[in-house]
Amino acid sequence: MSATASHFHLIKTDSGTAARRGRLQTAHGTIETPIFMPVGTQATVKALTPAQLREIGAQIILGNTYHLNLRPTSELIAELGGLHRFMRWDGPILTDSGGFQVFSLAKLRKLRDDGVEFHSHLDGRRLFLGPREVVAIQSNLGSDIAMVLDECPPWPCERAACEAAVARSARWAAQCLAAARETGFFERGQLLFAIVQGSTYDDLRRGAAESLAALDFSGYAVGGVSVGEPEPEMLKQVGATTPFLPAHKPRYTMGLGTPPQMLKMIAQGVDMFDCVLPSRVARHGLAFTPDGPLNLRNEKHRRDPRPISEEVVNYTTQFSRSYLRHLVQAGEILGCTLLTLHNLHFYLDLMAQARAHIEAGDYASWHRAWCERYESGAQRV
Amino acid sequence: MSATASHFHLIKTDSGTAARRGRLQTAHGTIETPIFMPVGTQATVKALTPAQLREIGAQIILGNTYHLNLRPTSELIAELGGLHRFMRWDGPILTDSGGFQVFSLAKLRKLRDDGVEFHSHLDGRRLFLGPREVVAIQSNLGSDIAMVLDECPPWPCERAACEAAVARSARWAAQCLAAARETGFFERGQLLFAIVQGSTYDDLRRGAAESLAALDFSGYAVGGVSVGEPEPEMLKQVGATTPFLPAHKPRYTMGLGTPPQMLKMIAQGVDMFDCVLPSRVARHGLAFTPDGPLNLRNEKHRRDPRPISEEVVNYTTQFSRSYLRHLVQAGEILGCTLLTLHNLHFYLDLMAQARAHIEAGDYASWHRAWCERYESGAQRV
Repeated sequence: MSATASHFHLIKTDSGTAARRGRLQTAHGTIETPIFMPVGTQATVKALTPAQLREIGAQIILGNTYHLNLRPTSELIAELGGLHRFMRWDGPILTDSGGFQVFSLAKLRKLRDDGVEFHSHLDGRRLFLGPREVVAIQSNLGSDIAMVLDECPPWPCERAACEAAVARSARWAAQCLAAARETGFFERGQLLFAIVQGSTYDDLRRGAAESLAALDFSGYAVGGVSVGEPEPEMLKQVGATTPFLPAHKPRYTMGLGTPPQMLKMIAQGVDMFDCVLPSRVARHGLAFTPDGPLNLRNEKHRRDPRPISEEVVNYTTQFSRSYLRHLVQAGEILGCTLLTLHNLHFYLDLMAQARAHIEAGDYASWHRAWCERYESGAQRV
Repeated sequence: MSATASHFHLIKTDSGTAARRGRLQTAHGTIETPIFMPVGTQATVKALTPAQLREIGAQIILGNTYHLNLRPTSELIAELGGLHRFMRWDGPILTDSGGFQVFSLAKLRKLRDDGVEFHSHLDGRRLFLGPREVVAIQSNLGSDIAMVLDECPPWPCERAACEAAVARSARWAAQCLAAARETGFFERGQLLFAIVQGSTYDDLRRGAAESLAALDFSGYAVGGVSVGEPEPEMLKQVGATTPFLPAHKPRYTMGLGTPPQMLKMIAQGVDMFDCVLPSRVARHGLAFTPDGPLNLRNEKHRRDPRPISEEVVNYTTQFSRSYLRHLVQAGEILGCTLLTLHNLHFYLDLMAQARAHIEAGDYASWHRAWCERYESGAQRV
């Protein structure tokens, strides 16, 4: 198997938008796209068991290279049979390169041409992450989909700094691909995705997309979005990137988004999403509904016997708002579990609806109506 | 239905010990005794869903009157259909009277002859709990088994103070029974248990047991144990009480205990137990095994691919000690969930084993061998 194997099949392309209905083959099973991928940073999707993830229809989850490499270390996970076996998740796993967290979490980092030196945020230990290292770590983890090392420019970003980041990211991407080929990565059934940077500079994004597209990666991510920029700017950046990505490869926007953002990006031709939002806000008492998020801390839910939503059916929607509010107010772990389960199910089910509407050919009108209802009904978080 | 209805059936009494194999009928189902009851203080067994409780074989759970009456209040729970419906647990529920927490948690409490005045530990609100109030609250909750209000003497306790507490508890018990009868408690299928106090004074315990036995309660609890006294003293107090309780009523020691303590009390004729120990220590990384508790924080489990125990099969035992240790070290909620599930399953399964051995007629030798192995193998917590 090589990075060029036809692991991705386009089942249908929408006529009214750039939305795509696809199927991605991995070593641990097939993923129906568009898809949302729950985030399992530290070898666990916070507050849920693997059985609960299956129950809500999760097809693929994320692991976090930076965190797992620090603790328990990728060597230990390899020794215990890889990340799937370690966490008892036998479906596909995507891991990031760890680069993003080096920039956001690590201390005393030093950017070099061959990678980035940093100190662990846990114990100050000195570490280095370069293209070879991120491929080796993701080999150890046994990731079905690995990401290249990149430099994610902040927002806003001066053009010169952005050009340098794009150039460095391009070199690292090529080095990651070479390292993957040399070490039998693709023969083991693992996939490697490139990441397009370029901040708000359309021409830099196009250049990055085209030069990475010329290399034969398994898929392509739009990086450097949702780093502080306003939503229209974010969507504009995605729109400035996807047209220059190969049509027959999966496309992934990293770290996104709200439900309407995901639907709008699907309309721009994006296939894959991941975001900590649904699970993180769950732990703060927020539940998603087709009419916007519901803040269960709100006093008005105190005596409310209704479920979070009458239109959504999952394990959590058997409970009243009153009970869920009680759990949240009392700081009970079960509140985190039930709301995480609900929110992730809401995201996964939204993707299932999106797939059905792309197949049915009415994605354009459906997603506009869905966003309109969600955004107009949105309660204040 | 009255408190005297034959809701409890002794299936077998052990010849080698005072152990009993029984069956307790409640409005929400039958309980096979001896039984352990997971504690669901705030309308949730911490970190588990009702489905997970069912999966590990929970037959009956506890709710906590003091906590639920403060938040969300028993009136609100009644409005939402009672505690079973509120928390979506359709099996039996036992609630305590709230008295114990008034003494251990509340601020500025004032003991009166007709009850106890106190301030909420949550918001300082002034409240009063008397015999009528605890019956009314437990009516609101819809408890299958309610407990009388009592005064639990501390350990150690002067004889005069203990005598006063026993006398006050006896008056309150009779007043609770009267209030229950007047308000249709038994007609609704609810049961009411008395509580025997008496601290370390055998004659006071015997007197309390006999005078409460003369009243027709649905069951009898041994109270005031595990309040700081050494284990031999605790077992002695249970032994000084059970012989004077009616044989045809269930017996319950409140707030107990370790696995060997429960087995030893079963041998003394106790049928029911509850304890926060297995769930509380789970949240600190401790897992029960037939060879004693395992502290998963210990460095020696870092690379250990084995399950918590080779002899125990539940959802948690598919995971390695290494993974569980990782979750505990990383402070992940899933660690709490998986270890709570394991520990409660361990307790429930131990009770299932005890029931089988009482039926088989070898409880005496089996429970001695079990305790010996557990206590000799016990790792340092």
